[in-house]
Amino acid sequence: MNAQACLQMLRMIKDVSFASVDKEGMPHNRMIDVMLIEDKKLYFCTARGKDFYDQITQNPHIAITGLNTDFQMIRLHGKVKQLNNPKVWIDRIFEANPVMNDVYPGDSRYILEPFVVDNGQIEFFDLGKHPIDRQSFRLDQEVVQQHGFLISDACIGCRTCMRNCPQQCIQSGTPYFIEQDHCLHCGLCYENCPVHAIDRRG
Amino acid sequence: MNAQACLQMLRMIKDVSFASVDKEGMPHNRMIDVMLIEDKKLYFCTARGKDFYDQITQNPHIAITGLNTDFQMIRLHGKVKQLNNPKVWIDRIFEANPVMNDVYPGDSRYILEPFVVDNGQIEFFDLGKHPIDRQSFRLDQEVVQQHGFLISDACIGCRTCMRNCPQQCIQSGTPYFIEQDHCLHCGLCYENCPVHAIDRRG
Repeated sequence: MNAQACLQMLRMIKDVSFASVDKEGMPHNRMIDVMLIEDKKLYFCTARGKDFYDQITQNPHIAITGLNTDFQMIRLHGKVKQLNNPKVWIDRIFEANPVMNDVYPGDSRYILEPFVVDNGQIEFFDLGKHPIDRQSFRLDQEVVQQHGFLISDACIGCRTCMRNCPQQCIQSGTPYFIEQDHCLHCGLCYENCPVHAIDRRG
Repeated sequence: MNAQACLQMLRMIKDVSFASVDKEGMPHNRMIDVMLIEDKKLYFCTARGKDFYDQITQNPHIAITGLNTDFQMIRLHGKVKQLNNPKVWIDRIFEANPVMNDVYPGDSRYILEPFVVDNGQIEFFDLGKHPIDRQSFRLDQEVVQQHGFLISDACIGCRTCMRNCPQQCIQSGTPYFIEQDHCLHCGLCYENCPVHAIDRRG
């Protein structure tokens, strides 16, 4: 996997959820079509009359997620940018998504405004495999923010974490280590370590 | 449709997206299984090690959305409540969702904490019909908050709104009126009314 493949997966799923935050700090969530994917950029549109439009023009932070039929989940956190030349973009979007004409026939399409997400962090999470598999990518050049847990040098090698891990993704060593690609981030190792040698990442 | 039927639809979709807000006010979004539905209550669980657990125990406001294969979308905004007697609830959840044992075998299930959503507003939005169809419900006794647009008595009956509506859901009258169940909330009527007779609701 890589960032572009993750975006293509969102386009294949097509109807994915977009979460935004309103000016009172409340979360909102709805299914939106992924309209176009180009070179690590995701395009979508929404109508100027919708609460969603107000929310993302006031606060561009957005969290997108989708799941395919193989139980592979994509999560994308980034900032939306409203596009210049909206009519050109809306025409391109309708050309690539002709079913949009059923909802917005004729010139009514121009009530829609186009947006792009070309930054932020993507997580790929495969729940269809055992052990589970996860990978993180950036759409831009920033460093990937890590989550989950790390075993420190305080580890005494007692195997408690290894015994408790539901995904068997902890290996012995000095110190023991978590196979991060297979970790659920459930916290069982963290809660059960008798010497508190396990720390949160990020 | 009613509130309970909407929750049952989320259970049928099963993997639906849950949006939360972290302590910096940023949105997060991921797919979560709807585990149980009972008398206008939705149950789910998450592991104590996950960022999601921290987010919803610090800020219980959540926005859930899912889409079925008929392009019917459910949106639910409410507050989560953490449940007492977590082991009893987790055992009930695993009994109803035996596939959970593949991810959390044996006693590792008890790293999960059970939550319920028994309040808030639900929106049903059917994009598979023409014109589209939408309805709102409450899970508790509060009044449904209305969105979209209303035509006021300032209407001069010029038909501009009716001509512009992509869903043909504006009817003549004194004043003209919007068939709210079929409205996209796109804002074309609002933007084009020559006498500004159309107001936002809610």
